[in-house]
Amino acid sequence: MSDAFNSDCPGRTVFTHVTSRWGMLILAALRAGPLRFYLLRDRIGGISEKMLSQNLRELVRDGLVHREVEPSVPPKVSYSLTPLGEGLAASLQSLLSWIGAHTTDVIAAQRRHDAALEHR
Amino acid sequence: MSDAFNSDCPGRTVFTHVTSRWGMLILAALRAGPLRFYLLRDRIGGISEKMLSQNLRELVRDGLVHREVEPSVPPKVSYSLTPLGEGLAASLQSLLSWIGAHTTDVIAAQRRHDAALEHR
Repeated sequence: MSDAFNSDCPGRTVFTHVTSRWGMLILAALRAGPLRFYLLRDRIGGISEKMLSQNLRELVRDGLVHREVEPSVPPKVSYSLTPLGEGLAASLQSLLSWIGAHTTDVIAAQRRHDAALEHR
Repeated sequence: MSDAFNSDCPGRTVFTHVTSRWGMLILAALRAGPLRFYLLRDRIGGISEKMLSQNLRELVRDGLVHREVEPSVPPKVSYSLTPLGEGLAASLQSLLSWIGAHTTDVIAAQRRHDAALEHR
């Protein structure tokens, strides 16, 4: 059992890594099934090809994403979740659902907070 | 319903914000109950007081954390989750549990990957 609270623990490194903004969005996007590089890029608004390549390389190294090269001309490369990645992506789902449902609450709280500061 | 995949959507801003490394660890630490500033700092290995202050200010503005000043001399300041923050912290729990249980799998995958590259 590893501990994300402990900065000396490998759990912290993994935590920092898998909770990168792009890493989480890539894992969540691949939950629907394998995707080719350019489709993945289009799915994740605002990601550059450089950031996508770099994050995919890290996720492959972590054993979370599988890179498949189809023997065609030109070769087609697709990415999918490994069983390990599927478990992580599933555990991200409740976070993404919360954000989907509560973004308006957070924005309303920010407005109330800023208005209260202005009227001090 | 807001969408973290869309870079033009407020959901992305909230996603980026609440998924910051320190933000998530602070929310998770406060699940056990209110904490004073210095106890919170000690709970989260490696966080500086500056980063902790800055992240707490943002979480208070987001309506996720409540800051309570006890009228004592010197004043004691404690932080707790708001009902909104409790919902988010609960949705983070499955992610933290996954990391606790699977850090060794990720590290093993990294070693296999690096060893395969060396022997190419």
